[in-house]
Amino acid sequence: MAAERMVVIGGDAAGMSAASQARRLKGPDRLEITAFERGHFTSYSACGIPYWVSGDVSGPDALIARTPEEHRERAIDLRTRTEVVEIDVPGGRVRARDLATGTESWTGYDHLVIGTGARPVRPPLPGIDAPGVYGVQTLDDGQALLDTLAGRDGGRAVVVGAGYIGVEMAEALLRRGYEVTVVHRDDEPMATLDPDMGRLVRTAMDGLGITTVGGATLTAILTGEDGRARAVATEDATYPADLVILGMGVRPETTLARAAGLPLGAYGGLLTDLSMRVRGHENVWAGGDCVEVLDLVSGATRHLALGTHANKHGQVIGANVGGGYATFPGVVGTAVSKVCDLEIARTGLREKDARRAGLRFVTATVESTDSAGYYPGATPMTVKMLAERRTGRLLGTQIVGRRGAAKRVDIAAVALTAGMTVERMTTLDLGYAPPFSPVWDPVLVAARKAVTAVRAAGM
Amino acid sequence: MAAERMVVIGGDAAGMSAASQARRLKGPDRLEITAFERGHFTSYSACGIPYWVSGDVSGPDALIARTPEEHRERAIDLRTRTEVVEIDVPGGRVRARDLATGTESWTGYDHLVIGTGARPVRPPLPGIDAPGVYGVQTLDDGQALLDTLAGRDGGRAVVVGAGYIGVEMAEALLRRGYEVTVVHRDDEPMATLDPDMGRLVRTAMDGLGITTVGGATLTAILTGEDGRARAVATEDATYPADLVILGMGVRPETTLARAAGLPLGAYGGLLTDLSMRVRGHENVWAGGDCVEVLDLVSGATRHLALGTHANKHGQVIGANVGGGYATFPGVVGTAVSKVCDLEIARTGLREKDARRAGLRFVTATVESTDSAGYYPGATPMTVKMLAERRTGRLLGTQIVGRRGAAKRVDIAAVALTAGMTVERMTTLDLGYAPPFSPVWDPVLVAARKAVTAVRAAGM
Repeated sequence: MAAERMVVIGGDAAGMSAASQARRLKGPDRLEITAFERGHFTSYSACGIPYWVSGDVSGPDALIARTPEEHRERAIDLRTRTEVVEIDVPGGRVRARDLATGTESWTGYDHLVIGTGARPVRPPLPGIDAPGVYGVQTLDDGQALLDTLAGRDGGRAVVVGAGYIGVEMAEALLRRGYEVTVVHRDDEPMATLDPDMGRLVRTAMDGLGITTVGGATLTAILTGEDGRARAVATEDATYPADLVILGMGVRPETTLARAAGLPLGAYGGLLTDLSMRVRGHENVWAGGDCVEVLDLVSGATRHLALGTHANKHGQVIGANVGGGYATFPGVVGTAVSKVCDLEIARTGLREKDARRAGLRFVTATVESTDSAGYYPGATPMTVKMLAERRTGRLLGTQIVGRRGAAKRVDIAAVALTAGMTVERMTTLDLGYAPPFSPVWDPVLVAARKAVTAVRAAGM
Repeated sequence: MAAERMVVIGGDAAGMSAASQARRLKGPDRLEITAFERGHFTSYSACGIPYWVSGDVSGPDALIARTPEEHRERAIDLRTRTEVVEIDVPGGRVRARDLATGTESWTGYDHLVIGTGARPVRPPLPGIDAPGVYGVQTLDDGQALLDTLAGRDGGRAVVVGAGYIGVEMAEALLRRGYEVTVVHRDDEPMATLDPDMGRLVRTAMDGLGITTVGGATLTAILTGEDGRARAVATEDATYPADLVILGMGVRPETTLARAAGLPLGAYGGLLTDLSMRVRGHENVWAGGDCVEVLDLVSGATRHLALGTHANKHGQVIGANVGGGYATFPGVVGTAVSKVCDLEIARTGLREKDARRAGLRFVTATVESTDSAGYYPGATPMTVKMLAERRTGRLLGTQIVGRRGAAKRVDIAAVALTAGMTVERMTTLDLGYAPPFSPVWDPVLVAARKAVTAVRAAGM
């Protein structure tokens, strides 16, 4: 029997996890695997780039989980600097271009895995492509920025966007000696939180010496006579900049999929079933930043670009292509981050997400501490909880604090996955000892207040 | 209408939480509350005593959440140094003795709350009550030990028992300059873990300079001519000691309840229903270290002395006595601790618990890190998971590591509460960012390995 042919588009987390898992289940005699990657690198942690820029991590090697050579040693025919330019779904083949030589060729597949990732939002404004404007999406982006930083004694940096990448890059550049201004669209930074929680982040950033400018609409990057970026212009003001970082979020990279007529959702991501098979296509799979996923709390699909999901998708695809069985049931929308020692976390729905989903809810916000109040170094944290009216079902949790704040959100993430009510959560048997928690964990304190709010709201 | 009368026996977490919560719901015109406490203190954190001894916490005031005066300000008639010596259930009254004057009197109740706590195991061996032998159960115990330590430059300390209190006291005395030997019964310390995980604790304690002696049976405390303890004798050896700490666990303090004919379980703890009402008694409630609780994983009752449960029980009792409605559904057996920077955590069943419950299971043990492997200071942690054969239901999780290890057990605690399978756990949406987790959280890595073990075990 001839070996089956698996073709992977994109050599990062989703694609290469799929390839590796399939290879574990089926040897080269039963499954040929070909993977196309247009860049130089494979299986790297883009999430680690801010820590490379800050100097915490020596890169780029440390950020690479598995090199092209290591994949090849596992009998995966990995072709870097080779870009897939067309998917022929009826013909079961892809057309790829060798970027060095320009030659193109077709490769047939029995299973196609699309892991084309995401592309950063880059509005078509004057100066947006000028030298001195940096993205933080790929290792090449990181290297370009580090080349610029090398040997400099700081200066003025403007970060456009105050999401995860924005705040992490603000920290990184602050620590590299820059005066940092973060210009962002919403009133508060970290719009992945509700504004009342985002305000806590802004206050902390102020305290660190990071200037934040909310409610700002970017209009242009102004350039000097040498063509380099020298300022960021918004509708209201101009911010001088020796370097500009774009952290305006990402969108699914689905140009190829769209051209091939594959089904896309409201956010432009590929739509799959729970086995990560592209809807309506028996032998086409997709995972990672290019897909939309089911939000288990709202019941809608959403786009969430996060390495941990991409790895899970790849694992599921690889199991299924390899002849096993696995599914990815969906997400609850957990994310954690930090700015210096401020920890930021969320899971589930924000107020506006809940409204959009047609849910009625109550909120409860409490302040507590990471460890027993009397324990040395006990630090405050704020926990906000959303619960559905009447049912009391947990809808979301946001945490802003210091030591021990971020990963506490996992408690709520598991509770959301299980569909728990806040009442049930008040009796959760969580780890307690004075160095680790007050006798009522902050998450339990929030749940108790949410129970009161649910009752007060009545029917 | 005359006010109802609530009587509380025991002024610590369970009893005073019940009193406070009931008071919140009903004012003094509707509910009279009388609380009897034989000691000087109320509502204190016994769990904090090791950190007081180590010098981390200034005590005892810091360990007192609410003083007798503060309770009295909330219209609770709190009588310290007053010991209840008899419960007359048919008569609906208790007899209490003023320890200063010796006078006794009866107090009638409509609702009785028993929060008599636990007493430390203290085998009737020669020398066990000698000066120089200390418990760590009450603030008075802590003060006695600190009085001894004051002004000393260390010496030799022997800790008997290697459970939570034992290892925490070993750390405390090490930091006070003592040479510390921990003598314990099982082969490995922390018998609340499986032996393979306890071994990791022993290795770490060795590395800290704490001597551990496993498999030891205490036979006597040897005393000097002055009558003070000077050595600990086991069946095999003698360990010189300037001071001896007893950390041999606790048992429910239910002498009064037993005499009153109230129902006790296999561990000597009071048996209640889910509303914390003593079984068969409409108006008698019990909570905290003197009760047995339902283990949601094994389905059996067990005794777990832990402040966080006592507080929850009190909250539930107070809500019910106050005319509301609340239940305590049970525990999954979560506990966390540390020895210096070693963090130790468990939840659910150990191997021997699972066998005792009649469950067949598989185990999986993995090593991972608290943060992305490339992130500076990433520290190793070991996670062990037990899953039921065939169903794959999570049965228990144990974690030994450093930074970020202990509270990760909460993920498993919530999953246990929800009855999740390890397969479902592999897709949990946990917080991921390089400073906080590898792309696969250590708990997920363990769950993946457990899935493989479940499959390999077949039917």
